[in-house]
Amino acid sequence: MQRISTVPLQDLTRSSENSILLIVLDGLGGLFHPDKGGSELEIAQTPNLDKLARTSSLGLTDPISPGITPGSGPGHLALFGYDPIKHAIGRGVLEALGIGIQLTEAQVAARGNFCTLNERGELVDRRAARINSQKAVELCKRLNMIKIDEYSFEFHHVKDHRFVLLLSGNGITFEITETDPQTLGVPPLQSEGISEAGIQTAKAVNRITAEAQRLLAEEDQANGILLRGFSSLPTMPDFRKITHLRPAAIAAYPMYRGLASLIGMTVLPSGDTFDDEILTLKKYSKDFDFFFLHYKATDTAGEDGDFDAKVRAIEYFDGKLPEILDVDATVTIIAGDHSTPALLASHSWHPVPFLLNSPWTTEQASTQFSEGSCAAGTIGRIPATSIMPLALAHSGKLNKFGP
Amino acid sequence: MQRISTVPLQDLTRSSENSILLIVLDGLGGLFHPDKGGSELEIAQTPNLDKLARTSSLGLTDPISPGITPGSGPGHLALFGYDPIKHAIGRGVLEALGIGIQLTEAQVAARGNFCTLNERGELVDRRAARINSQKAVELCKRLNMIKIDEYSFEFHHVKDHRFVLLLSGNGITFEITETDPQTLGVPPLQSEGISEAGIQTAKAVNRITAEAQRLLAEEDQANGILLRGFSSLPTMPDFRKITHLRPAAIAAYPMYRGLASLIGMTVLPSGDTFDDEILTLKKYSKDFDFFFLHYKATDTAGEDGDFDAKVRAIEYFDGKLPEILDVDATVTIIAGDHSTPALLASHSWHPVPFLLNSPWTTEQASTQFSEGSCAAGTIGRIPATSIMPLALAHSGKLNKFGP
Repeated sequence: MQRISTVPLQDLTRSSENSILLIVLDGLGGLFHPDKGGSELEIAQTPNLDKLARTSSLGLTDPISPGITPGSGPGHLALFGYDPIKHAIGRGVLEALGIGIQLTEAQVAARGNFCTLNERGELVDRRAARINSQKAVELCKRLNMIKIDEYSFEFHHVKDHRFVLLLSGNGITFEITETDPQTLGVPPLQSEGISEAGIQTAKAVNRITAEAQRLLAEEDQANGILLRGFSSLPTMPDFRKITHLRPAAIAAYPMYRGLASLIGMTVLPSGDTFDDEILTLKKYSKDFDFFFLHYKATDTAGEDGDFDAKVRAIEYFDGKLPEILDVDATVTIIAGDHSTPALLASHSWHPVPFLLNSPWTTEQASTQFSEGSCAAGTIGRIPATSIMPLALAHSGKLNKFGP
Repeated sequence: MQRISTVPLQDLTRSSENSILLIVLDGLGGLFHPDKGGSELEIAQTPNLDKLARTSSLGLTDPISPGITPGSGPGHLALFGYDPIKHAIGRGVLEALGIGIQLTEAQVAARGNFCTLNERGELVDRRAARINSQKAVELCKRLNMIKIDEYSFEFHHVKDHRFVLLLSGNGITFEITETDPQTLGVPPLQSEGISEAGIQTAKAVNRITAEAQRLLAEEDQANGILLRGFSSLPTMPDFRKITHLRPAAIAAYPMYRGLASLIGMTVLPSGDTFDDEILTLKKYSKDFDFFFLHYKATDTAGEDGDFDAKVRAIEYFDGKLPEILDVDATVTIIAGDHSTPALLASHSWHPVPFLLNSPWTTEQASTQFSEGSCAAGTIGRIPATSIMPLALAHSGKLNKFGP
């Protein structure tokens, strides 16, 4: 009875001259490190972030809900205002987006591994001794020579032993089971249809797997393949239609560009580095009224469990902040898609520090941007999906709800 | 668009070596008392709780939602991760669980009162002057001699004027109205079927009521009965299946044992006192990876409106805490099913102090465990249903959501 329904945001949005800059520091949140005496944000010297914090509102965001660790896909969808549970993105699709493949909704993508099988056809290494990329590219090329009648398919190399398999053709569906048994000493699984429609696709997948084993038989390490995460591009509500914004995405990593493109953002040429991204931001600053600016280095360092590298990544960002703020957006947000504490060397469930700056921001007593100051911030702890409504509100782009 | 759906927790849980200790201090939360200069937790001397707080994360939990005062049933279900609105437990069932009755799903339970009727059959005392238990036991025995053809039934005495009526038989249902008019000067109501199926059951209930009045006609005080809260055991998702835990419940009071058993926890022999419970915890500490340890004294003192007794109950618990922490769970949680401020002498709607200790807990500046320090804690204010996801996350028992 006390639960409030979801606001029909699309009915409330209006255009305005104001602009929004959403800066996503990937894996932003950290944890107190006993050897360091603080979290990565607390130990880093961040004069510019701290200065910004003094005229901003601070809070914590839950990408999904307390205790739940999000992948990068759901983490970003929540930042863009989409329910990340309802709009699930498959592993195969995300992997394809990650290498810059322009998927169509009619295609099925799977995440693949080269693997090592023994003479009885049983798995002995699910990752084929992590064969190098050069070798794997060559093997993908070989597998692309396989022909089966009903469907067309492509092997795209990702990195090391990983590849994406794309399937297309009449009646193709992702409603099939995986072939990766996730354990050793057994043969790869036969794919099966989960639905009636899946039976044909599963048969094709099993034929591809068998053909691949035949073509790879002479290989010492990569003599088999495993396929999982069969999925298709989900139909997503259009971000432009919901927000009435002219949105642009600036991200050096393909996956984030792919996600942004999926919801209708214009993906700008972003270069390879964060410095390139900033140049792009400056160049296009007058052409759009919403920018998603992605910074990857914080997550990479966190995933590596390298506390000092994460501190350096934060400090590097801090050094660039004045230049970024020069584009003078009406609303500037600093957020993260999830926490990646160096202490855990992985994504985590901890809520993510959040900063919102605008002419109508509540003044803070805070003098620092950190997990602690954000926990004490005036925004409190909110779902990450509330970031976009807050951004729209603070830029005068939301009408009143109800009479 | 900004609302996030419920995470399918069952799909994310995995087993691990780590263990979880959920300590529930019943009615934990209190209120500032003007004569005492603080809340019960603030006035109590709690060196051990305060020491634990310094290496823990603190927060506040809402058992249901702001402003809603929960009964013990919903309060505990929320702690165990169940939506307490969706999984409603009837008053009759809870009363039956409370006296240790092993209900089956085919039975209907009602909460009953002896009452006093005047010569015109009108209610003059809904509680029969709170007749003593000895007398009431004797009357229940007398009522158990009633025979009606279609259904079998049992009167079980609870305390004073209160009893449980259990009904079983072919076609029995809880879809009938109550006989307690909740007012004086009118006769007890006739029960009616809410559904088609309820018509037969309601007739039987009316016959039982009439027979009871006949057998009690000579009594001065307890010459009638009132029945309400007709309900059956709900089908609950299995806690073990959702969490992949091996859960055990330690509680001296039957109702909490009944609730735990309802969701599939192993109920350990817990003795009569909290000291007995601690002995049980030590004895079985290696046999399970989840313990629900229930402490009742805080609620009892709060319900009595006895501020000093609640302070003593907290201090007693604090004295036992080091012994409890000796079982060395990976995650230790101190929570409450609701607040029971002595100032109100009843359950209340106030959010409940919450402490989570684990190797991956964010460091707190807090030096005390109290309503105030928890309100300022890094966890913020969360639904009580988030406690289990947090416990599972902090013990490495949750996979990442999404790619």
